[in-house]
Amino acid sequence: MAVSADLSETDRTRARRAKERVTFDRELAYSVLDEAYVAHVGVATESGPVVLPMAYGRVDDRLYLHGAAANGLLRSGVEAEVCVTVTILDGLVMARSAFHHSMNYRCVVLRGRGRQVTDDVEKAAALDAIVDHAVPGRSSQARPANAAELRKTLVICVPITEGSVKVRGHGAVDDPEDLDLPVWAGVIPLSVAVGEPAQEPDQPAGLAVPDTW
Amino acid sequence: MAVSADLSETDRTRARRAKERVTFDRELAYSVLDEAYVAHVGVATESGPVVLPMAYGRVDDRLYLHGAAANGLLRSGVEAEVCVTVTILDGLVMARSAFHHSMNYRCVVLRGRGRQVTDDVEKAAALDAIVDHAVPGRSSQARPANAAELRKTLVICVPITEGSVKVRGHGAVDDPEDLDLPVWAGVIPLSVAVGEPAQEPDQPAGLAVPDTW
Repeated sequence: MAVSADLSETDRTRARRAKERVTFDRELAYSVLDEAYVAHVGVATESGPVVLPMAYGRVDDRLYLHGAAANGLLRSGVEAEVCVTVTILDGLVMARSAFHHSMNYRCVVLRGRGRQVTDDVEKAAALDAIVDHAVPGRSSQARPANAAELRKTLVICVPITEGSVKVRGHGAVDDPEDLDLPVWAGVIPLSVAVGEPAQEPDQPAGLAVPDTW
Repeated sequence: MAVSADLSETDRTRARRAKERVTFDRELAYSVLDEAYVAHVGVATESGPVVLPMAYGRVDDRLYLHGAAANGLLRSGVEAEVCVTVTILDGLVMARSAFHHSMNYRCVVLRGRGRQVTDDVEKAAALDAIVDHAVPGRSSQARPANAAELRKTLVICVPITEGSVKVRGHGAVDDPEDLDLPVWAGVIPLSVAVGEPAQEPDQPAGLAVPDTW
């Protein structure tokens, strides 16, 4: 199903400050979600908010999270509000003034209720999406989950519906009176570097190395 | 003040699964906090949990967050429970089975109540720590915050007291019956790459480039 509408701007996703950085562009949200590896997932518990890093996968306008069936955070998110935040850090912004130091980043914040995925077909597709998110095509190479593994895995779906995308992607913005200060200003770019794959020592040579990029 | 005690293991920070991955080692927590750039900060609001990425700084056993005085998330964390999660992603773990795919990471999760920093000396030191966190020594080069900028900035302190550190740092762990499958298994290392600093075009040459690493 093609979904073309942008994300929903609601009272709780509307920008209150730095509005020029916020959009609700669905394709931009997808590009950030597809490029990053880790989501930080927040739930409200009786003892306060909890935020944990999680792998995830995307199928069209649905984001999937998974964990052990007993995973407390995921269980807290079933039929309850969750916040899924995915951030890509693109650079450190050095200004002439301490106050205007900043970071360049792209960030998607999704709000919504988690739905437990119980349909076996959807569950298998969600798990494939999570594996393929790290390395495209990987789910067709690895041994698929068997019935016992599926039973042990809790999958929840968060709709990519209500949320926003925040992007900062420019140089230092100093006050006019600071522009002539003899302090280097600019951006130090940051990115994710992929190292040399390290194979398990008990395997034979010649197996196809995952083609990550 | 030197703080030597480990982080507190409490009902809400105790590991329930994968216990071998969890520690309460203070020095390990500091090393993760000092290496990463971004924290994901969660608060509980009336409309559900909210998680946003934030810069931060550390002074001894205190973690500092800052934002505009009107920053809704930070204000929600004053005298209220917050969760501060800092994750470093070290690699993608490819197993022979889809089920045993994983990630290598180091993650600190702090729970606690945010305290608004009102003392000017502590506030200035906290802001220095946040600037120096990105580039060590930077706070002594840039123009310090003036009185108006300090007024516009809300700083909150989260004690590095109750929390845990979770680390996965090994290869694929497949089931014995899968070990002979002809599927490449191992770790694809990930790290943060620092690019060439890009100076603002309106500056003269010859200013000292921040020495990031």
